[in-house]
Amino acid sequence: MTHASTPEFALIARHFKRATRHTLLAGGDDGALIQPSPGHELVISTDMLVAGTHFYADTDPEDLGWKTLAVNVSDMAAMGAQPRWATLAMSLPNIEESWIAAFAKGFYACAESFGIDLIGGDTTRGPLNFCVTIFGEVPTGQAIRRSSAKPGDDVWVSGFPGRAGLGLALLQGKVDFPEPQRGEYLKALTRPQPRVALGLALRGLATAALDVSDGLLADLGHILEESHCAAALQFAALPPPGIQRDMYLGGGDDYELAFTAPAARRDEIEALSVKLGLPLTHIGHITDGSTGTIHAVDAVGAPIELSRRGYDHFA
Amino acid sequence: MTHASTPEFALIARHFKRATRHTLLAGGDDGALIQPSPGHELVISTDMLVAGTHFYADTDPEDLGWKTLAVNVSDMAAMGAQPRWATLAMSLPNIEESWIAAFAKGFYACAESFGIDLIGGDTTRGPLNFCVTIFGEVPTGQAIRRSSAKPGDDVWVSGFPGRAGLGLALLQGKVDFPEPQRGEYLKALTRPQPRVALGLALRGLATAALDVSDGLLADLGHILEESHCAAALQFAALPPPGIQRDMYLGGGDDYELAFTAPAARRDEIEALSVKLGLPLTHIGHITDGSTGTIHAVDAVGAPIELSRRGYDHFA
Repeated sequence: MTHASTPEFALIARHFKRATRHTLLAGGDDGALIQPSPGHELVISTDMLVAGTHFYADTDPEDLGWKTLAVNVSDMAAMGAQPRWATLAMSLPNIEESWIAAFAKGFYACAESFGIDLIGGDTTRGPLNFCVTIFGEVPTGQAIRRSSAKPGDDVWVSGFPGRAGLGLALLQGKVDFPEPQRGEYLKALTRPQPRVALGLALRGLATAALDVSDGLLADLGHILEESHCAAALQFAALPPPGIQRDMYLGGGDDYELAFTAPAARRDEIEALSVKLGLPLTHIGHITDGSTGTIHAVDAVGAPIELSRRGYDHFA
Repeated sequence: MTHASTPEFALIARHFKRATRHTLLAGGDDGALIQPSPGHELVISTDMLVAGTHFYADTDPEDLGWKTLAVNVSDMAAMGAQPRWATLAMSLPNIEESWIAAFAKGFYACAESFGIDLIGGDTTRGPLNFCVTIFGEVPTGQAIRRSSAKPGDDVWVSGFPGRAGLGLALLQGKVDFPEPQRGEYLKALTRPQPRVALGLALRGLATAALDVSDGLLADLGHILEESHCAAALQFAALPPPGIQRDMYLGGGDDYELAFTAPAARRDEIEALSVKLGLPLTHIGHITDGSTGTIHAVDAVGAPIELSRRGYDHFA
């Protein structure tokens, strides 16, 4: 199913037609053609972003274009895959060329940052909605799954989770922060940085990984459930009780990576942190406790009250 | 980005979790894992179906589930690809288990008919919208494109285009037909049959192909434009002037295949028609006329007035 050319479609196509680098055929036919690399598996993920559920309809379109692709790139990072190709389907209530141009600019900025070819798409009229499907490659057998964490493994997290949640609270007028935090939190929300270099470096090093989209504890819970184990967390440096701590533990939309790795490889991970210029924080270890259980204490050993509830689009 | 478990999500997951047959990892992680067959290219297509634009919100959910996948399978057929995997992202205004169950039943009926594994998805709250991305395989270099039709090639079409358009006109109360036509037209609309067996048989035989989703003439126009040629059509058996003729030439949503092939291979195509039990009608030939031009006459040589305008979601 591919639809007729009209001036509006031509307008849209003009903004989403750029040269591809590793694609046999992109756009203009019933399907795109790619040739996956020999000796690799393909990692595939799809995400739908809906106005009013995932973003405000008045979000800056360039930011929205970046984020629409970035949240998918993050899934590739979490599996240790090199992102390579993406498709974009969108439903638009109306066609404003300046909006489309800005959206495309942000989308391609992300695509070019990560070496991704846009290979196909679909555009239709309807409530504002974007659906990206992304394809990455990983050498056969090397994808990092959620199900392989083992008791004794360290638990790590990249960056500073919670910043996007604080950015959203800022936008909603629920909190206020001075610069430079204000700008940093807003940017974490509007221009998330998928941790692709980290994901690639974690191949053969991490035992399990995922991206923190629902909140650190909720997402860590997914690893524990899939791996049938528990975790004991010791947060050496956690913000004091309050919204910053709550967001660190439960804020969504950050796209940092949470991962597990054998304790014997701690030095390699610390060296990786230096190499990537990205904080990697050791926050605890995996135990053989009851599946999905998290025990957590702060820097002085005081128990942290935990809510495992993450961001839920149906809440 | 993958979202937290809630009772509602668990409900949805229950209906979309079935064993896969040729997939390394499906669902439950940040991405699915597949291993494309050596010596093959991957054909990828994505389509978004929006309530009110592509279907009525009160469409029978089982039919809708079938059609949501079938329109994508049709893109694989048009390129001569064997459909193998699909992802499904959906936005739902509310969650009714009986509706979800019926949609899943129709979706899997189509998936099982064509040997497709559902490997991943996303579900969110919002206006009713479905986005399928489909992946098929074709031996390297054998994909059938739109751009390779040559002057002298025959032009063919499968089945009886226009039936889905007549089904829509029936639903809208614009026309009435007695049984069995009435049921046949409605079924063409609600349960389109992608021509996968035909597409596979056309590898190495057709010079160009596409699926008739916008209307026969509009879609044929896409081949002519991509192949930089024209067509002279002689319809030996066309319905008399009226809605049936109009729909044959311009009705959308049929998913028959229009294709071109060397005149020397006409016998093979006629034998294929018998083998598949599917009418394949020779409707003319490609010429070196001005790109995109179609000249058409009926059985007695009278010119047919043509409107090239197909079904357009922005019209």
